[in-house]
Amino acid sequence: MAEFHSKIKTIEWVDNFSKMVDQTLLPKSFEFVNITSGQQMYDAIKTMIVRGAPAIGVAGAHGVVLYAQELAKENLSCEDFVKKLLEKADYLITSRPTAVNLKWAVEKQKDLIKESNADIEGLVEKLKENGIKLENEDIAINKKIGDYGAEVVPKGATILTHCNAGALATVGYGTALGVVRSAFANDPTIQVFADETRPRQQGARITTLELTMDGIPTTLITDGMCSYFMKKGMIDMVVVGADRIAANGDSANKIGTYTVAIAAKYHNIPFYIAAPLSTIDTSIKTGDEIVIEERSHEEVTHINGDWICAKDVNVINPGFDVTPHELIAGIITEKGILRPDYNESIRKAFEM
Amino acid sequence: MAEFHSKIKTIEWVDNFSKMVDQTLLPKSFEFVNITSGQQMYDAIKTMIVRGAPAIGVAGAHGVVLYAQELAKENLSCEDFVKKLLEKADYLITSRPTAVNLKWAVEKQKDLIKESNADIEGLVEKLKENGIKLENEDIAINKKIGDYGAEVVPKGATILTHCNAGALATVGYGTALGVVRSAFANDPTIQVFADETRPRQQGARITTLELTMDGIPTTLITDGMCSYFMKKGMIDMVVVGADRIAANGDSANKIGTYTVAIAAKYHNIPFYIAAPLSTIDTSIKTGDEIVIEERSHEEVTHINGDWICAKDVNVINPGFDVTPHELIAGIITEKGILRPDYNESIRKAFEM
Repeated sequence: MAEFHSKIKTIEWVDNFSKMVDQTLLPKSFEFVNITSGQQMYDAIKTMIVRGAPAIGVAGAHGVVLYAQELAKENLSCEDFVKKLLEKADYLITSRPTAVNLKWAVEKQKDLIKESNADIEGLVEKLKENGIKLENEDIAINKKIGDYGAEVVPKGATILTHCNAGALATVGYGTALGVVRSAFANDPTIQVFADETRPRQQGARITTLELTMDGIPTTLITDGMCSYFMKKGMIDMVVVGADRIAANGDSANKIGTYTVAIAAKYHNIPFYIAAPLSTIDTSIKTGDEIVIEERSHEEVTHINGDWICAKDVNVINPGFDVTPHELIAGIITEKGILRPDYNESIRKAFEM
Repeated sequence: MAEFHSKIKTIEWVDNFSKMVDQTLLPKSFEFVNITSGQQMYDAIKTMIVRGAPAIGVAGAHGVVLYAQELAKENLSCEDFVKKLLEKADYLITSRPTAVNLKWAVEKQKDLIKESNADIEGLVEKLKENGIKLENEDIAINKKIGDYGAEVVPKGATILTHCNAGALATVGYGTALGVVRSAFANDPTIQVFADETRPRQQGARITTLELTMDGIPTTLITDGMCSYFMKKGMIDMVVVGADRIAANGDSANKIGTYTVAIAAKYHNIPFYIAAPLSTIDTSIKTGDEIVIEERSHEEVTHINGDWICAKDVNVINPGFDVTPHELIAGIITEKGILRPDYNESIRKAFEM
């Protein structure tokens, strides 16, 4: 098992609130914020104070606990409590539509709510325990993903990644960057090229920060540059995270990922997805069914509050794109690396 | 002939100086700056107060006139004057290495200097006339490029472009955006998608500005988004400029262009280069011989003076990339649209 280098815990339940890194402030300042109400959690997910598919899964689970704590003070009947809490849980899911981990984790809490025979106080306690359990499981899963992934990283490789699928996109260790961490633990000659990832610049703001904090050599490039370095033979593999994976392996991830995948294919460079099984949505057959979040135009027209373009320009700002399965060399999960045919390998992984 | 919509003249000789739009201030303010010395012109090209391959060609020609005016005041022998002026001309060429138009235009002035039988005053006058001639020819050439290009723009097309190969990259009208202008003059249902073009954001800052000033509907997208819209069938063709084209058609253009070309190929969308013959460097056989300018790291690590990443990150900042000829559907020039085999079609164009 690889050593866990990063000291970051992105989201953590403490006493009766959720403590998280405020990622909107990175890289200028590294601050924690305490989320103490359900509505605050909804807003934190929506405004991307917490982001990254696995991290917002845990955030959703914590959010249910926060709503449960609030409703427990309202002197409701057990029946009304359950009804209202399930409504709040569904509301939390709507904060961001693309990453399935949010839905997955909140549904885990909903199952507990529906199945519970405990009184309100007992149920709140159970939800809290489950939130903490999901939190701890996330790190363990990511370490497994990292270790499986490290097996396919060539000696001395340069790994290109897009956006941030790191410790800061999860509770800790990361998925794509978990692969980097595990590989680096065995081979300190590996290095990372990080795409800036406009519009929100998670690659520049977050990936470069967490990797350099761990002493992993990191080169920042702008999103259009990937093909230039691929052609020069400077990129050996691509590893990125995912927000939702269909039963056939089609994978939604941060906008721009699909472009990188096409460039990798053109240069015969293997392109991997690293994600826990909770990112796989077997209820959908292909990526065509994945809802793509449309985000605010200001993310494109402004940087740090300043206009960067003409004021009467049109904008479309999809937060994600879908990389079709035929461009994906493997999906690195906690159950091993899934290979095509993904319909088959994904089905088997869920049976393991 | 298409109507010239844009009122912009990017660079213009006035009396005894060169007047140009200061493009570093766009889109916040649209201001002209007077360049009154040779060194000022060198700096204006290097710092991208003037940019765009055809525009810096004219800037180089004007720069030679400015140096000639300065040296004419030094009471030199005719021989010394010529020697010193040729040195200054070569120095001007070094301000930016990739765009061949700069070298091409300065060499045109050098030919005049070497061949002249006039006295110093007469030579200065000839250089000035030639600078103004190149300026006027540029607009005429761009209108021809635009009109040839418009013939391959489908009715109601959405045209994707990268960086700015517009009126502001030339003296006026533009090359890639010349094609857009000519097409739009015939068909007001066409529209443009403009890549932001990190790191310098010429697409956001300049292309959206000049197109919306002309009333052409323009949608700004980030560089990673192109494939997303191509897959959705929302892009009908790609047209970009070029900074240097090899004898086999390999074309250097702003970094990120090669990625767009690969994405276009993957989606079977035609990818065109629009450039004057002065951009074609028949002295080099392939794009491998094109020198790629390395620009400052701050262009990648900072936006508007603010750090956007970890401070101990590595950076490589190539200003250009080379799109191989096999990804190019055609090169739109003032002599018509050149098609593969480019070795053949380029040779013929120079014979016309």
